[in-house]
Amino acid sequence: MRMVDIIEAKRDGLALTREQIAFFVRGITEGSVPDYQASALLMAILFRGMDSEETSYLTDCMLHSGDTIDLSQIRGIKCDKHSTGGVGDKTSLVLGPLVVASGGVLAKMSGRGLGHTGGTLDKMESVPGTRIALSTEEFIHQVNDIGIAIIGQTKSIDPADKKLYALRDVTGTVESIPLIASSVMSKKLASGSDAILLDVKYGAGAFMKTFESARDLAKEMVAIGDRLGRDTRAIISGMEEPLGFAVGNILEVKEAVETLKGRGPKDLVELVTRAGGIMLLQAKIVSSEEEGEQRIKKAIDDGSGYQKLLAMFKAQGGDVSYLEDLSKFPLAPYIEEIKAEESGYVGHIDSLGIGLSAMRLGAGRATLEDVIDPTAGIVLAKKVGDKVEKGEVLATAHSSKPIEEKENILHAFKILKEKPDELPLIRGYIK
Amino acid sequence: MRMVDIIEAKRDGLALTREQIAFFVRGITEGSVPDYQASALLMAILFRGMDSEETSYLTDCMLHSGDTIDLSQIRGIKCDKHSTGGVGDKTSLVLGPLVVASGGVLAKMSGRGLGHTGGTLDKMESVPGTRIALSTEEFIHQVNDIGIAIIGQTKSIDPADKKLYALRDVTGTVESIPLIASSVMSKKLASGSDAILLDVKYGAGAFMKTFESARDLAKEMVAIGDRLGRDTRAIISGMEEPLGFAVGNILEVKEAVETLKGRGPKDLVELVTRAGGIMLLQAKIVSSEEEGEQRIKKAIDDGSGYQKLLAMFKAQGGDVSYLEDLSKFPLAPYIEEIKAEESGYVGHIDSLGIGLSAMRLGAGRATLEDVIDPTAGIVLAKKVGDKVEKGEVLATAHSSKPIEEKENILHAFKILKEKPDELPLIRGYIK
Repeated sequence: MRMVDIIEAKRDGLALTREQIAFFVRGITEGSVPDYQASALLMAILFRGMDSEETSYLTDCMLHSGDTIDLSQIRGIKCDKHSTGGVGDKTSLVLGPLVVASGGVLAKMSGRGLGHTGGTLDKMESVPGTRIALSTEEFIHQVNDIGIAIIGQTKSIDPADKKLYALRDVTGTVESIPLIASSVMSKKLASGSDAILLDVKYGAGAFMKTFESARDLAKEMVAIGDRLGRDTRAIISGMEEPLGFAVGNILEVKEAVETLKGRGPKDLVELVTRAGGIMLLQAKIVSSEEEGEQRIKKAIDDGSGYQKLLAMFKAQGGDVSYLEDLSKFPLAPYIEEIKAEESGYVGHIDSLGIGLSAMRLGAGRATLEDVIDPTAGIVLAKKVGDKVEKGEVLATAHSSKPIEEKENILHAFKILKEKPDELPLIRGYIK
Repeated sequence: MRMVDIIEAKRDGLALTREQIAFFVRGITEGSVPDYQASALLMAILFRGMDSEETSYLTDCMLHSGDTIDLSQIRGIKCDKHSTGGVGDKTSLVLGPLVVASGGVLAKMSGRGLGHTGGTLDKMESVPGTRIALSTEEFIHQVNDIGIAIIGQTKSIDPADKKLYALRDVTGTVESIPLIASSVMSKKLASGSDAILLDVKYGAGAFMKTFESARDLAKEMVAIGDRLGRDTRAIISGMEEPLGFAVGNILEVKEAVETLKGRGPKDLVELVTRAGGIMLLQAKIVSSEEEGEQRIKKAIDDGSGYQKLLAMFKAQGGDVSYLEDLSKFPLAPYIEEIKAEESGYVGHIDSLGIGLSAMRLGAGRATLEDVIDPTAGIVLAKKVGDKVEKGEVLATAHSSKPIEEKENILHAFKILKEKPDELPLIRGYIK
């Protein structure tokens, strides 16, 4: 088999065979297929697409390109949740404890990666002492013990994805539904959970710019999961604004704790309730999503979700006194308010703009070598639909260095004369 | 400037700027743009195309990526001719001497490359003693002295094309009109001629499979030449069969000599007459193509073309006694006849099939390391339109090793019950 024939087949719009896909994935993993042929194929896939069968083959080959995690020693139906990434997305830290407090089991491996703000692992590491590098034995033991663990993905999982992702990033081939779907699903499936809930976000701050593209991606990922024998579902949520108020690592951990104590922002509470209801149904703990949602609400109200968060951090070495007393967390040396220059209603908050500003304040990484400032970030004071008077605070910027982002943050807020229509956060559900 | 932004611009269907194209060509020449980004851009160009302005910029950058040949010390309008490659294409060896015998000047640099049969340089080297590696000074001196030289392209010309061509060959990005056009034209323009005649072939044995694609390629190349200030024209010719009767190095040299002596195959004579007429007009030696064609016919009839061929080989060190007595050339130790298994008319001769058989007999290279057998090849006994009786010879195969291609050669001939319509060799002319 020759790689050039595989490239030409896809270039000419043919479906690749299982053997061709296996040859390609093995070749990039072992290094026998050079990067220049891999990138030509990736670009041809971007233009020609892949059907569901090809995408499933690709996912299957990628997930078997390295180690796979065997979670069979963990009792119960193991759930996992994955978000395609949003600004202010601290969902895992809230949803995980709530699902587990309601009877579920969450054995989650998270990637680190680049981003406007840190990932879940970076947020967890902002609690002093927290370890995210557990051995598989420790991981399984912790989940059997307290029902939950969120750890870093080991290097030996899905090496094909690591190679392909790095290549896609520099060759303009990120925005391809089969490539995004196979990347996400191969990692999730290699991590061994029985049921997967995906949160596919769309809007200016997200991977997918439109509802239609988010829906197509969600359908593709659900189809892959189903073909490969896992109960996979997806919700599609909008990103007209960052999720919740806080953007930045310590700032988001605090908001996660407040949410588990019943003082969460409306959109975040809506998301974790709906997602949690679905996950509890997937775990066969409840017989309807509505019943699941009631359980989630109860786990907020009775504090059991909060207790589970403490248990998880404690098990992973974190100093929970910070979570019990949020004032213990350090504050950034520079904190400045951004004030409205006109009166009206908040019509839209540019998530991408807020995310990039937060990154420049120190909350995220532009390159993998960058060190995150855990205190940095942005706290919104107003959300979409809120009335605002000229001179009122729109947001607060936090950083360890003098703040130069005020202008950018101000411009992320679009102020309207009329109150905009209220939109639900969750716009679609694929099962 | 970042290469990934250039890839994304083309991926999204935008026209690249002059600066972006210059960055890319400089990057691949110097090695600062990695191959995996270059191949992703090539695939995006294959899908999105390039407009005439972009293609001209690309050609201009490529031709200036290395040395350019200054032919200003040569008197007269320097002509060059380029064929996109066909089976049995010995045109340069016939056309060049005829144009020069009629008053033109031909300073031609040829590439070697891969192919079913050797290129012009390989054919020349089958005459003992012939040197194709002349210095630029020797080249200019020879053209000033006798009006003609055909030599190998120096390594320092168009390094960007060498790099891109090697990459295109293994990444499924050969068949792109702007990439083919810029590759051909950048080499031609770097070689310094004032006027260029292109012979764009189409059919099963050619780069371009259809008349339409050959016409589009021809138009693009003519547009580039015109934009970059050279009189460029193109003829479009069919490849329903190999050109002439002979396919293979010594075999083609013999046919070239016979043609210059007035005993040439009808199709080859038609091609050199028409092409020569155009080139003489481009060189401003005649005032119409018809007048040019008369001059070419005269140069065949009076033997002046043949004398010019002898002069060229002599100047380049070749032993012209072989050309004066064709029986001096060695014959292949194995020569076998392929006979018709049915009666009828030859309707089509698969050029690609004949070319590949000739290559396997030893006439061409599958890899650049292969050594050519100058005696090997195929001589057709029948051409399209000829009547054939069962048992009559269709072709003769020549090789230094036992012949295993008889079946393949037989199958290259399509025998019809009815005589097919006669088609002219030249189907289009772009000026």
